[in-house]
Amino acid sequence: MASASLHSLLLKTPNNPTNSYSFKNPITLPSQNVSFITPTRSNKPFSITCATHVQDRSTTTSETQSQDRVFNFAAGPATLPENVLKKAESELYNWRGSGMSVMEMSHRGKEFVSIIEKAESDLRSLLNISSDYYVLFLQGGATTQFAAIPLNLCKMDDSVDFIVTGSWGDKAFKEAQKYCKPTVIWSGKSEKYTKVPSFNYLEQNLNAKYLHICANETIQGVEFKNYPTPINKDAILIADMSSNFCSKPVDVSKFGLIYAGAQKNVGPSGVTIVIIRKDLIGNAQDITPVMLDYKIHADNKSLYNTPPCYGIYMCGLVFEDLLNQGGLKQVEKNNIKKAELLYNAIDSSNGFYRCPVEKSVRSLMNVPFTLEKSELEAEFIKEAAKEKMVQLKGHRSVGGMRASIYNAMPYAGVEKLVALMKDFQARHG
Amino acid sequence: MASASLHSLLLKTPNNPTNSYSFKNPITLPSQNVSFITPTRSNKPFSITCATHVQDRSTTTSETQSQDRVFNFAAGPATLPENVLKKAESELYNWRGSGMSVMEMSHRGKEFVSIIEKAESDLRSLLNISSDYYVLFLQGGATTQFAAIPLNLCKMDDSVDFIVTGSWGDKAFKEAQKYCKPTVIWSGKSEKYTKVPSFNYLEQNLNAKYLHICANETIQGVEFKNYPTPINKDAILIADMSSNFCSKPVDVSKFGLIYAGAQKNVGPSGVTIVIIRKDLIGNAQDITPVMLDYKIHADNKSLYNTPPCYGIYMCGLVFEDLLNQGGLKQVEKNNIKKAELLYNAIDSSNGFYRCPVEKSVRSLMNVPFTLEKSELEAEFIKEAAKEKMVQLKGHRSVGGMRASIYNAMPYAGVEKLVALMKDFQARHG
Repeated sequence: MASASLHSLLLKTPNNPTNSYSFKNPITLPSQNVSFITPTRSNKPFSITCATHVQDRSTTTSETQSQDRVFNFAAGPATLPENVLKKAESELYNWRGSGMSVMEMSHRGKEFVSIIEKAESDLRSLLNISSDYYVLFLQGGATTQFAAIPLNLCKMDDSVDFIVTGSWGDKAFKEAQKYCKPTVIWSGKSEKYTKVPSFNYLEQNLNAKYLHICANETIQGVEFKNYPTPINKDAILIADMSSNFCSKPVDVSKFGLIYAGAQKNVGPSGVTIVIIRKDLIGNAQDITPVMLDYKIHADNKSLYNTPPCYGIYMCGLVFEDLLNQGGLKQVEKNNIKKAELLYNAIDSSNGFYRCPVEKSVRSLMNVPFTLEKSELEAEFIKEAAKEKMVQLKGHRSVGGMRASIYNAMPYAGVEKLVALMKDFQARHG
Repeated sequence: MASASLHSLLLKTPNNPTNSYSFKNPITLPSQNVSFITPTRSNKPFSITCATHVQDRSTTTSETQSQDRVFNFAAGPATLPENVLKKAESELYNWRGSGMSVMEMSHRGKEFVSIIEKAESDLRSLLNISSDYYVLFLQGGATTQFAAIPLNLCKMDDSVDFIVTGSWGDKAFKEAQKYCKPTVIWSGKSEKYTKVPSFNYLEQNLNAKYLHICANETIQGVEFKNYPTPINKDAILIADMSSNFCSKPVDVSKFGLIYAGAQKNVGPSGVTIVIIRKDLIGNAQDITPVMLDYKIHADNKSLYNTPPCYGIYMCGLVFEDLLNQGGLKQVEKNNIKKAELLYNAIDSSNGFYRCPVEKSVRSLMNVPFTLEKSELEAEFIKEAAKEKMVQLKGHRSVGGMRASIYNAMPYAGVEKLVALMKDFQARHG
């Protein structure tokens, strides 16, 4: 928790499970349409106390955060739930009486098969995935999918459309150029990737096989709150959800394919999850490496070759934990609360802190911000580290700061960060 | 350890750190030329007691094998060293005071960079890898390399040669057909993959870019004891060493490229190690997925995208352990001792047990065997499982039994298996 000196600077607010300040508009749910609005009660720098008692689970978890843990704001690999780590620790040497570690299990043995089947089943429950879709546990990260998607879904001459709202969408587009004819139908680059376009005026190609988006740009902190529809009714929508996977409910049926690296919200690095509509597989290009062919993996239930077993096991523990929390609606509520606290702190700092992203599309997961006095950024990051808040440096391509506040970041971690921000501003503002 | 009933059947032999029976020829080292010879002292079924006290580390480890551990003969993922698992368990929740698990670390943070750099450095020490080679930590298993190798080293019209001594070499050949013009210059298929050819009579293509072997066939248990030389002096030798990687010293300078999935001898699944001569990279075909391009990974020190961090950490712990054991010469000695015990038991069973592989190329790692009365195989596997020896079933493509006795299999595990074999034969022979 924040040090005494930090606490002394905070304005006290009543203990209240809801926010005690008023909004221009109420927060609207579901998440597809969430926006963050600066409080209007006062022109003073906004502040909030660490002593607020909110009764949700994110706070409960944070209250039991071990003293020797840091608050890890890394963009991925990222913080994991403490109880999941404790469970993994207790089972590492001997998994449930099997006499071996999960790391030692044959991927074709009954023990591991039970692990991967439960992981899939729990993920299907979380996202309400119908039997029209395969769920695949693969390797190679989203970057491997940048090639696998056009290799599986296109011929070399096929057109596909990309909406590029940040660095990852751009990478996906560039890789697709090797395997089909992609077009960037909208790019936020000229505005430094701070926006999502209005869907009404997109100039989609009538014959595009798919429309690709990156649902949450990890580096720039831009998140789609709702989704465009391909103009061609035979085309599908594809989303890279690496950095907001399982952070909120998603209507999977709107997508032909969803993919995500696990290492943000649902596990360690080394596992990539692909959710693909069953009718889309089986037509990979001849040059497709067998390991990038969805049909191979679907026919073999992700066990064509040795999968990343331990990572899948960890994902399974996280899925179970998310279900125990009440599922993704509750998870989203917690994430909104954390993001609200941080964005409000930025927006009420009278420009001392700045978030460049348009308010309506700010990410619940990755919060980039800069200091008006950019020469102080290194000092801020240093002080945060001293207070056991680490990995706050922005991506090397954009600079500034970035706080990644994935599912597993406790509310107390954001409170502590906001407390430091106030304190730092009081000293340097 | 074996049950009392098993022990009672064993002939007692003197406590002797070396073998007490005589060989037709002494065992010859180095490993490139090891052969297993049936003892000649007696025509009775060969037997050995579990009580033998051998002073090497493999036995020391086995003597401290926890009572709740099984002996896991799986072909991969496979048994890991107990002390490595214990260390991983102790560090899982909070790695060396960092306040986080290795699974939570940014791959670009100083903590993980120290982990991957030490892993690489220790592997270089183990295999005496010169600075002319890159060491890459990748994803996707050897199967991904089956595509990556021709994509990186060939044009579509280039010839390459394959010696196929088992199922994995055959898979590598088939995948290469997508990206170049491979020829099988020798295949053991007609003899059910039980041999390695004589190198003198190979009909290599004069213009082949490389000669590919699978150094150890996991399914058939066929292992190269020395290596062929490409006839074209500009060509290179490439070896899939997945299932005997770090099981013995290897002269890396004889190879242009060595690759291995980690999940047999050096870690959990999800990590693939590629050792490649530096001058060979940078000419990938245009259709190469960026994640399969060696130059991308070499230029980025295996950190182009998020690597399988926890798996790399585990490999690092294993490398450290192998160095602490005295390096690969000592590891090979232990492996020879284990393999000897098991092959001798098979060969001295008067045909009750049979290993189909030609003696001079029997694998130190994977020991396939059948029962003369094949109808008893299921019963044998069942009894073994009851005695806490698991995963002894042969690969589904070949049947029978297979005991994988990788580095981390304790000597006591092989002793116990051999004891059961004697006991089973006494009851069913």
